[in-house]
Amino acid sequence: MTQLFVRTLRDAPADAEVPSHRLLVRAGYVRRAAPGIYTWLPLGLKVLGKVEQIVREEMNAIGGQEVRFPALLPREPYEATNRWNEYGPNLFRLQDRRGTDMLLGPTHEEMFTLLVKDLYSSYKDLPVVLYQIQTKYRDEARPRAGILRGREFVMKDSYSFDVTDEGLAASYQAHRDAYVRIFDRLGLEYVIVQADSGAMGGSASEEFLAVSAVGEDTFVRSPGGYAANVEAVTTVVPPAQPVDGLPTARVVDTPDTPTIETLVDHLNASFPREDRPWTAADTLKNVLVMLRHPDGSTEPLAVGVPGDREVDPKRLETQVSPAEVEAFDEAAFARYPQLVKGYIGPAALGTESVTGIRYLLDPRVVEGTGWVTGANEPGRHVIDLVAGRDFTADGTIEAAEVRPGDPAPDGSGPLELARGMEMGHVFQLGRKYAEALGLQVLDENGKLVTVTMGSYGVGVSRAVAAVVESSHDEFGIVWPKELAPFDVHVVVAGKDEATAAGAEQVVADLEASGLEVLFDDRPKVSPGVKFKDAELLGMPTIVVVGRGYADGLVEVKDRATGERREVLAADLVATLTAD
Amino acid sequence: MTQLFVRTLRDAPADAEVPSHRLLVRAGYVRRAAPGIYTWLPLGLKVLGKVEQIVREEMNAIGGQEVRFPALLPREPYEATNRWNEYGPNLFRLQDRRGTDMLLGPTHEEMFTLLVKDLYSSYKDLPVVLYQIQTKYRDEARPRAGILRGREFVMKDSYSFDVTDEGLAASYQAHRDAYVRIFDRLGLEYVIVQADSGAMGGSASEEFLAVSAVGEDTFVRSPGGYAANVEAVTTVVPPAQPVDGLPTARVVDTPDTPTIETLVDHLNASFPREDRPWTAADTLKNVLVMLRHPDGSTEPLAVGVPGDREVDPKRLETQVSPAEVEAFDEAAFARYPQLVKGYIGPAALGTESVTGIRYLLDPRVVEGTGWVTGANEPGRHVIDLVAGRDFTADGTIEAAEVRPGDPAPDGSGPLELARGMEMGHVFQLGRKYAEALGLQVLDENGKLVTVTMGSYGVGVSRAVAAVVESSHDEFGIVWPKELAPFDVHVVVAGKDEATAAGAEQVVADLEASGLEVLFDDRPKVSPGVKFKDAELLGMPTIVVVGRGYADGLVEVKDRATGERREVLAADLVATLTAD
Repeated sequence: MTQLFVRTLRDAPADAEVPSHRLLVRAGYVRRAAPGIYTWLPLGLKVLGKVEQIVREEMNAIGGQEVRFPALLPREPYEATNRWNEYGPNLFRLQDRRGTDMLLGPTHEEMFTLLVKDLYSSYKDLPVVLYQIQTKYRDEARPRAGILRGREFVMKDSYSFDVTDEGLAASYQAHRDAYVRIFDRLGLEYVIVQADSGAMGGSASEEFLAVSAVGEDTFVRSPGGYAANVEAVTTVVPPAQPVDGLPTARVVDTPDTPTIETLVDHLNASFPREDRPWTAADTLKNVLVMLRHPDGSTEPLAVGVPGDREVDPKRLETQVSPAEVEAFDEAAFARYPQLVKGYIGPAALGTESVTGIRYLLDPRVVEGTGWVTGANEPGRHVIDLVAGRDFTADGTIEAAEVRPGDPAPDGSGPLELARGMEMGHVFQLGRKYAEALGLQVLDENGKLVTVTMGSYGVGVSRAVAAVVESSHDEFGIVWPKELAPFDVHVVVAGKDEATAAGAEQVVADLEASGLEVLFDDRPKVSPGVKFKDAELLGMPTIVVVGRGYADGLVEVKDRATGERREVLAADLVATLTAD
Repeated sequence: MTQLFVRTLRDAPADAEVPSHRLLVRAGYVRRAAPGIYTWLPLGLKVLGKVEQIVREEMNAIGGQEVRFPALLPREPYEATNRWNEYGPNLFRLQDRRGTDMLLGPTHEEMFTLLVKDLYSSYKDLPVVLYQIQTKYRDEARPRAGILRGREFVMKDSYSFDVTDEGLAASYQAHRDAYVRIFDRLGLEYVIVQADSGAMGGSASEEFLAVSAVGEDTFVRSPGGYAANVEAVTTVVPPAQPVDGLPTARVVDTPDTPTIETLVDHLNASFPREDRPWTAADTLKNVLVMLRHPDGSTEPLAVGVPGDREVDPKRLETQVSPAEVEAFDEAAFARYPQLVKGYIGPAALGTESVTGIRYLLDPRVVEGTGWVTGANEPGRHVIDLVAGRDFTADGTIEAAEVRPGDPAPDGSGPLELARGMEMGHVFQLGRKYAEALGLQVLDENGKLVTVTMGSYGVGVSRAVAAVVESSHDEFGIVWPKELAPFDVHVVVAGKDEATAAGAEQVVADLEASGLEVLFDDRPKVSPGVKFKDAELLGMPTIVVVGRGYADGLVEVKDRATGERREVLAADLVATLTAD
């Protein structure tokens, strides 16, 4: 500790919102260099190296071959797949001294596709799995949570190349199995959920989420085993109803009912139902947003959802990606005088309507369902407006929030919601990139066929933070053995020379046995401060050499359980290596 | 070889100018992704990893602590040291989504300085040596020679922090010793030369150059042990002469003498000397250039050198850095009608002259030396123009070429010139960065003192190419044992099953002994092609399992010496591990 480049800090950085950020900075593992951009200090780099090694071993075990692409990449391949545009402001773009457009790679599908195209030409060359552990860049709008969501970060990304769909399925399964082993070895509590493919295009896709209250992803699971990222959940659609005999729609006065709650109260007071009271679920809420497409153009969009649900911004974004969602502001309203705020109804929406605004409905709004919704006049709503009879839309959209108790789409029971951090992603890309970039090989019959690909990622630097999220207490980090920068933290508690010499002997013995030891030899620091630092730094075992050493005893503390025991110094190595 | 992601190429890339570039691409170690930007394929990445490991071990051995900084960095620290500007077009600059200026780090002095400032505050914390092995970026004007001079490359950069000059000297020496061990282990033939500090500022500085005809650096050495980068060579200045009694300067007609050669001929024909013929060394040539400063402004500069020497562009650039040297073009001449091309003389030069152009002289032009030089009139020169008597300048400059036979500045004999590649650089930075960024610590007396720093680099990815430059032949790469991606390359030469099975057994035995084996198991490839590939790929030992295997024999070929011998398969492991 007198030599190690580390300083523990009493106070967490002001911008630290989550425990791993606070602890990794306070314990001197990482240090901020710019927003969302961190430096790895010696202790942090050791942990990062151990995570990398686990990932490397498991990738090699499934036959992955390691390569390393540059981070600074040419524009053309990303232009060919349209991702140069689709990434929008998330991509770091720059020009070199000749004015050539370049980018900092956010992920490398294009480059791997071109590399295989460059070297391989026959079905006999496949399958092949290539991977890299490499620095990636994404210009996040809100970098937060330290290394959990940085703008420069380390990822393992791998890509499989197969001739047949069955081959891709096998490559996918091999990766999925490898990821199970990786996250088991990292000691993370995780779930595997169905994922939306997002901007990547393609088909089958699952995410490995570390379960964590501070996670940015929401996922659902059912008692019957369904699990999905909330963006991927599909709504259980009720059957269409016959419209015959349904009451006729009628426009009613609903003054001062700008919200769903005031509307429902008004309906129950002035237009009570016979069978039951009106609820928010009887109303149809039409939400307007502005889409910004990657080319910079904007497009208004109306989304109709049952009034008891909000539009989930992330689910909406996923559906409209690569467009981004912006607010429908006053200026936008000014362009559409037909829209009466708070009383917008289907008659004013849709590409065929007076506004021409594209209108998408929640899948629950099936034919034959009746709704209370805006009448496009101030203070008026329409009751019994029946879908399919009185209004239609331009399509449906999965944008309404998912709520606990909603049915799982596979019939496996009610959903519960929880939060997680995306640690890994396995994804059957299919032939999208191979087609865009012309990756074909000759098949057995000498015919050119397009290769099918998988893309698989692990957040390597993020894993360091995720482990801390899942393994810490109020005093500091609690490293699992496989990731701790040192196996043992030896503290000298005592100023006499005999104790100091004893501690040196203890350290020498431990190191001779092959254990990695962090030795707190600071002469002028109190035992209390040393203990606090040891808890903060989080090595699995803390050995205290103090008063008892005169009797040949040292104290061994298990950082995870807090258990302390006295051990004969002579037995220490045997005790620790037997654990 | 049926599994490994590699393809050997018959033809070198069209832009490949040097052997390492040709061979590393042809053998499938690296692949170009963009100009000056390369992808490491599996074989190349293994070699790179071995170089990194050697560097890491030797840095750890001198107490270096490994950290890792981001490559994407904020502008402010580089602004504080003025390098944001001084780097000019060599720096990759970009803006993030908020329009904040950022850069891709070409070297990290600023960031390390700020990190130590951030964590340390006392002389007791020092000395400390921090290093990283990390990806760096420089937007080279002419990326060439493959990974020898890329725009994205891997460097080890380390920094020492000391309170005293003696401490810095010790840290410097420790690095120098570590570098000797590193380059010895890499098996490179290298020289350690005095270096100019270039854009870095500061004082003592040495370079480790790998001796190579394709190197971009020229260095000199003397029989007495002097060695320096040519940019760092200082001229041995003759003593000043008394001007009393020297002939008076006279302007003479020298029609049609636009070159030194025509001038000397004319002088010998029309104005012969009594003691000896005129030579080019008697003339003073005034060369005009335009400097472009980092802020974009330009400034004319005149350099006067003896007519028997050219101005060395690299020596000149070093002297005027961070300004860049551009041609003094027709437009520039048009602005100075007093300058008569081919007949420019000292009278028209200097800040006090009619042109006001700054005028610097070669150090050989000492007081009392007489010269033939331009008379600033078409077709006329002046003879016996004596420095110090008839003209002066604004100073001296070390810009004339160094030639074989020039005396070493330390009196150790005549210089010889050779070429090399810069592989390492050790450099006493001093307090420049600490001052610019406010890195101070409390000394023993509680007084704030500015820290003194060293900066030390090793070109890690470049080393891979340098080793190939120094170790290859017409057939391919010849890896030294410590760097080869595999220890042994086993070739099956024979199509019968017994030979194939024998080869598998040989491979299994070698691997069981701990050797790393590359197995050419390609069934439909001829032995001749396999041999060629083995020579190209360059593993230290090639084992051929062929016809002789029926008699229990295999052939062992040493790639470096070409020596072949037959060995009993049963003795193979013992033979190879005994080597």
